[in-house]
Amino acid sequence: MGKRRLETCFSPALYEADLHRGSVVVIIDVLRASSAICTAFENGADSLIPVAEVHEAREYKNRGYLVAAERDGFVLDFADFGNSPFNFTRERVEGKTIVYSTTNGTGIIRQASSASAIAVGCFMNMRAVTDWIIRHNTDAVLFCAGWKNRFNLEDTICAGAMAETLMLSGLYTTICDSTHAAIDLWTLAKGDLHGYIEKAAQRSRLRDKGLDDCLDLCLTFDTTSKVPVIRNSVLTAGESA
Amino acid sequence: MGKRRLETCFSPALYEADLHRGSVVVIIDVLRASSAICTAFENGADSLIPVAEVHEAREYKNRGYLVAAERDGFVLDFADFGNSPFNFTRERVEGKTIVYSTTNGTGIIRQASSASAIAVGCFMNMRAVTDWIIRHNTDAVLFCAGWKNRFNLEDTICAGAMAETLMLSGLYTTICDSTHAAIDLWTLAKGDLHGYIEKAAQRSRLRDKGLDDCLDLCLTFDTTSKVPVIRNSVLTAGESA
Repeated sequence: MGKRRLETCFSPALYEADLHRGSVVVIIDVLRASSAICTAFENGADSLIPVAEVHEAREYKNRGYLVAAERDGFVLDFADFGNSPFNFTRERVEGKTIVYSTTNGTGIIRQASSASAIAVGCFMNMRAVTDWIIRHNTDAVLFCAGWKNRFNLEDTICAGAMAETLMLSGLYTTICDSTHAAIDLWTLAKGDLHGYIEKAAQRSRLRDKGLDDCLDLCLTFDTTSKVPVIRNSVLTAGESA
Repeated sequence: MGKRRLETCFSPALYEADLHRGSVVVIIDVLRASSAICTAFENGADSLIPVAEVHEAREYKNRGYLVAAERDGFVLDFADFGNSPFNFTRERVEGKTIVYSTTNGTGIIRQASSASAIAVGCFMNMRAVTDWIIRHNTDAVLFCAGWKNRFNLEDTICAGAMAETLMLSGLYTTICDSTHAAIDLWTLAKGDLHGYIEKAAQRSRLRDKGLDDCLDLCLTFDTTSKVPVIRNSVLTAGESA
């Protein structure tokens, strides 16, 4: 049997849904959505419903759901808490369904829906999510969420770390320049991940808003074996390593 | 006076025309359009008219123009020659207006038209085009042409080489993750440019079509001081260093 193909997409604006039909896709949004979602499932959340619009989140709140919702770093007044990973404590989320407000995220999930399986990945579940990819034994796409359709460094180096592991397994091949670039940038970054991330625009944005307390957490490897998977636009901790 | 802002765009699908209104833009298509265009002007071409459609190129041919036109590496039957830099010899192009068939190129030129000035850059005119950017003394965008809207390595490392020079001048600042990534990839590549380019998808495509004889030419620095500029969708050797 030939090797599986590995591709990397740097931005929702570059995603080729038709090309990735039948592949497995890992959505990467290191700062902070993927890390928050992994934290929620590590702490026992039952499921997570991403919603695009504030009014949808509010309707869920009125129906009794736990709601995580913020815009530009500010928690919305009706929400239970914001989108920082630290909010998804075991006390709050264990056994619960959480509504998660994310304009970009819902668009990305819609784009990825042609895939045969969709997971959420980041540094926190690096080993688990690369194992999940390998278990699926088919072509794989590392889908960086980016920021407002722009390329970003943190998602790219995280994709590069995943790609390095997958290529070293000997099971994958790639003719994708983005994958080569991601691996090369990861190679430069891995000796000092925190230092490398200093130049990322999102790192500055989080600092400016006082939201950078989660940085250590988001850049730590393998703190969970959960692999959040998306089916019918709902996330569950579908599979553990 | 504050520093000028430097940004890098990895693909036409990522270009933010409104944001770059008033900036100077350098369009980079190393393999092979930018290199062919620089060769044409180095060899004395008077001007170059990019056209999107084959029928347009044919009409120009019927009106007596010199036409460079190929699709997927094959010279179109009515054309004088294809798009390889080697075709633009002094004997053929000196003092002439050349019609250049390029579907992607015309789209990119249209996108960049909100800029205050547009030039074509590559390794061949690296010093000249970075001097041109600095002379314009305003915000600058390095616009990688990519391939069918995809990120590619060769345009990115060329942008990285330009960005390195501009940042070292002390006149520019950047908060653009793409610019940081381009510089980092260039840093990795510059010790062995030919070796690095081996993994680029376009390098394989050119080899498969027997069109890779131009590789040495396209990866050589500063073989011309011409800076092709685009005004009203026509290219001229507007400025020399």
